[in-house]
Order: sequence, then C-alpha cells, then structure tokens
Amino acid sequence: MRMRMRCRWQGVRGRGGRVATTRAKRVEVSTQGEVSRSLQDIEAVIFDCDGVIWRGMTAIAGAAEAIRGLERKGKRVMYLTNNSTKSREQCAAKLGHFDVKADKSQVICSSSSAARYLDSIGFDRESLKVLVVGQEGITIELQEAGYEVVPCSEATPSSEAKCTIGEFEEITIDEKVGALVVGVDDSFSYSKLCVASLYLSQVEGCVFVATNRDVGDRVGDDGRRIPGAGPVVAAVETASGRKATNVGKGGSWLLPHLLETMQLDAGKTCIVGDRIDTDIALGKESGMLTILPLTGVTDEADLEACPEESYPDLVVESIATLL
Amino acid sequence: MRMRMRCRWQGVRGRGGRVATTRAKRVEVSTQGEVSRSLQDIEAVIFDCDGVIWRGMTAIAGAAEAIRGLERKGKRVMYLTNNSTKSREQCAAKLGHFDVKADKSQVICSSSSAARYLDSIGFDRESLKVLVVGQEGITIELQEAGYEVVPCSEATPSSEAKCTIGEFEEITIDEKVGALVVGVDDSFSYSKLCVASLYLSQVEGCVFVATNRDVGDRVGDDGRRIPGAGPVVAAVETASGRKATNVGKGGSWLLPHLLETMQLDAGKTCIVGDRIDTDIALGKESGMLTILPLTGVTDEADLEACPEESYPDLVVESIATLL
Repeated sequence: MRMRMRCRWQGVRGRGGRVATTRAKRVEVSTQGEVSRSLQDIEAVIFDCDGVIWRGMTAIAGAAEAIRGLERKGKRVMYLTNNSTKSREQCAAKLGHFDVKADKSQVICSSSSAARYLDSIGFDRESLKVLVVGQEGITIELQEAGYEVVPCSEATPSSEAKCTIGEFEEITIDEKVGALVVGVDDSFSYSKLCVASLYLSQVEGCVFVATNRDVGDRVGDDGRRIPGAGPVVAAVETASGRKATNVGKGGSWLLPHLLETMQLDAGKTCIVGDRIDTDIALGKESGMLTILPLTGVTDEADLEACPEESYPDLVVESIATLL
Repeated sequence: MRMRMRCRWQGVRGRGGRVATTRAKRVEVSTQGEVSRSLQDIEAVIFDCDGVIWRGMTAIAGAAEAIRGLERKGKRVMYLTNNSTKSREQCAAKLGHFDVKADKSQVICSSSSAARYLDSIGFDRESLKVLVVGQEGITIELQEAGYEVVPCSEATPSSEAKCTIGEFEEITIDEKVGALVVGVDDSFSYSKLCVASLYLSQVEGCVFVATNRDVGDRVGDDGRRIPGAGPVVAAVETASGRKATNVGKGGSWLLPHLLETMQLDAGKTCIVGDRIDTDIALGKESGMLTILPLTGVTDEADLEACPEESYPDLVVESIATLL
C-alpha cells in the first residue's frame, strides 16, 4: 500500500511568503505588523501550549521570545491547555524548560479543570472517592484539592490489560466511588475499560468527567497523530451508555469558569491555539480575538475546509509572528 | 453511593405468568401455542446464541430441547452470532457443549463475516496483509480463507499496554498491510489503539472492518455488562477519524449476503435474538418473523421504550417456549 503523503501539511513549515497558495483557495497568513495592530488594545493573551509553544519535545522557534515581548508590553499572559497528563505546576515547569517563565497561577490544565468542576458541583470529598482513568496530572490536582483518588489501575483484576469474563464477574464495586474522571491514558486497557464502564453503569449517580475530547496530537516527522483523551472517552462512553461532561476546551463548562476565575474581559482578550474545534471555538464563543498558528494540528487544508463562522481572526506561521 | 438496582431486569427470570406487569405498560409474553402457530409456515429459523441459547457459561434451560424439536418438525436451523472471538468451528463446538448439535456450515459468526466481506470486495490476498485487533476467531477465519494476518499485538512497540510518544514515533509501518479488522479484544490496549489508528490514517485506502458494534454482553448475577466490540471500534474510529464497515448484525452489509449465501426466503424465515438493534432490526428489515427471548440484554423496560416499528413480532420468556 502507498503511504498517505502529508506534503501539504509539511509544506507549511519553513515557508517564507505571506500567502500560501493551495488548490482550493488561499489561506491568508498575517504579517507581524498586522498582528501587532490587532493586539494593540488586547490586555490578556491566552496561549494553548502543544502545537503553539512546543510540539512534542521540540520548541517552536521564536515562541519564548514572542511571549516575553508581549509581557514587556504589559500584556497579561496565561496558559490554557487540554493536557491532562500534567498538573499546573508540572506544566509551568515544562514551560520553563522551553524558556517561558510561568507561574502555576497562570496555568489552567484540563487536569486542574477536572478538580475545579468537582468543586463547582459540590462533590462530597469528605465521604466519596474519585476513580481516575488517566495519568498523574489528574491525580495530583485532585489530591491537592482534597479528593481521595482511586487510580483505575488499582481497581482492575490484575496489572494485565486483559480481563476475562470470569474476572469481570468477580470485580467488587467500591461503594464509596462517586465520580469517574477520564483523560488520556498511555496505559489504557480493556481491563480499565471494564472497570470504568462497570462503575458508570452500576453506581447510581456516578459523576462522569472527561478532561477533554481531543482526538490526538501530531508528533514525529510524518505528522502521525498519537491518540488523545477523545478515543479513550469514546470507548468508555460507548461501553457504559453514559455521556461525559467535557471540562476542557471544546466543552461548554470551561468558558464561564475561565472568565470568572481569571476575571477576564473577553473583548480585550486574545486566545492563541492550534485547534479550530477547541481553542478557536472557545474564543469565538466569547468574542475574544482568535489567532491560529500553523505549527500544530491544523493545516492549510483544514483551514480551506473551515466554515466562515469558525475561521480564526488571524492565521500566523507561528507565534514568533506575535513578537 | 447506592448501587443501581437491577430488580426489574432480574424479575423477568423464572416468572411463570403470561403477562409481565410493568410500571409503564404491559409487555405481552407469548405462550407456546401462540408461538407454535406463528412458526407453522416457517421453513428456516436463525438463532442468535449469547443471551438466547446460553448466557455467559450457563445454558438457557430448555433451549437445546426446543431446537431439537424444531429440527424434528423439519425446520432448517441456523446460528448467526456477532461473536468474533470464535471461528465457526469453535462456535459449533460450543453449541455442542450445550447439547445443540450443529455443523460449521450452519454457523455464521462475525469473524467469518469479516473474511467473507474481504472476499466480496476482492481484497488482494496475494500481496496484502490484514492487521487484526481482536481474538483468535478472526485470525482463524481469515487464515482459513487464505489471508495473511498480522496480529496487532505483534505490531505494537512492546507487549505492554503502554505506548510512549517516543515509541509511537518509532513505529515502522508495514506497507503490505491493506486492511484492519477490529473485533472485541479482551487484551485491547492503548498501544494497540496507537497502531490501529496509525495504519488507518497513514496507509492510503486501508480497508476498515468492524466485526460488529455490540456494546457488550450481560454477565453475572447483577446483570453487569462486559464491554463488546462497540467500545473498541469507537476508540479506533475516534482516534483515526475513519468510519468502519460493520459486517455484523446491526450493519447493512450482512443481510443481502446472508439471504444470498444461505438461499433464504425471508418470508418463510424466523430470526430469534435478544437484541432489538441487531437481531430484531435485521429481521424487520427483510420481513422475517422476529422473536425476542427475555434471557439476554433486552429487559422489559427496554421493550417498554421500544418504538412500534422496531418491536419484535413475539416476545418469549425463553426459547424453551419454541418447543
């Protein structure tokens, strides 16, 4: 079989010109001057991280300088990521690793949003526990907020991915579990799927939280996409017949929470992200200025197919243009 | 948390009366005489297996006798199951284990349907391979039909459920793989999800087959539902952005294939199954007589909620009523 060519996607990198010519129509890429004028009255800039400041383990060239430049101009800078594998503190540390100085208070991850969501519904942390399918970011944030966590790996019949019918029938339900939080889990397994769906269907009123529904992130040279929380959430939803509340970008819970807790004036806020269906959608919904860099999951073909109402206000090669 | 009570579901078992009184309305349960009259002009009876002839590892009382009775009356009996974990031969052996004498030629499993589907599209078995997420039934049926199988477990970076970004970036794509078959897999893992979605998105024209989309099967005393192929297929579809062709009951491919290869006259055929959305739907679509036993996934509450056009022609306590 012939491998799918990703030329168009790769083509956007390292190109110098202002306008990227594509088959269907032209994607307008903004210049530094245009971006600078648009940002003049903006007081706060919210950055997505993966695909914007870094990509996998590689820094986006010029990103750190651009962010420092905005801060020098007196803009308030925040970081809003659907990443649930890290806590806010770990995200701030990763930003530091890429020469972006950030404090935990400037960061919202979907792991911390899961904790804030449980706070917001008054989940009874005194007597109930939270089952977690995901990586350590969720556990750290929940524990920091005083929730008792049951990692799903400790509720499976064994440490194996496998779960037989006999093992499944023998699983004892911990009646103190009152919520399930699902994020991306690079050790997700059939046995975790069994446990998660069992609690959702057998425990009356079990709260069901998804950190986000991101399909995955582009990594590597050929732009292959590693699965994100979306596929894991889809499996658990299908098995349980339940629908999760998405507390990340792309869901409806986050925006009012964000505006209130961060005390933002949406009209003077700009959101910079690489996903049309999460970052740009959130900005559009609230009336923020929206900027999409071509360094992440969205390529020019995606933009060509993007309907007018979802289209970002500005498209940039990378956030280096924001300098 | 209080565990969800499954009283109504459990209540249907072992009850003697003809009419099951429920809160919303009455579910009419047919008597032996009524069923016998309906079956008079029927020449062929297609049985679903799980939830009809057995449930988990337990035989449904009177099922084997009823099937023998139908055969004595000269009815042609067939078995049509969405189970993909077994081959037709293994299914026939399992039927034998429950005292139902069946030949492989009387059995269609979703594992064999996956092979027949690839036959039907003229998949190039000489030069291409088939990647399989699932259990041995699929592999046996594909190999018997001359297809070269790559078990997904052999294409993952390691035997672990885990797959890191670094490992994912290093996966080498076997360019000879031209199709992916996904069924239920009791060892499904994040690393298999990574491999399956990678092939679907990176290999141009990769055929994508789902053995079925069943959510799961009821097992154990409390009627807990163990995840089926549906959640696994949903995860792979979400990660890849591709849609699978469902070759099992519930999909549109099976019915014409079934009528043709089994040379059935739908008007003189009866289908007996425990799922409204697969067994009964297939029967309704073709004009077969449809019978639903209350020994499987569908309980009286489900029937109460079932719209008129999807409602089975007859509801029976169990197939013992068919004697």
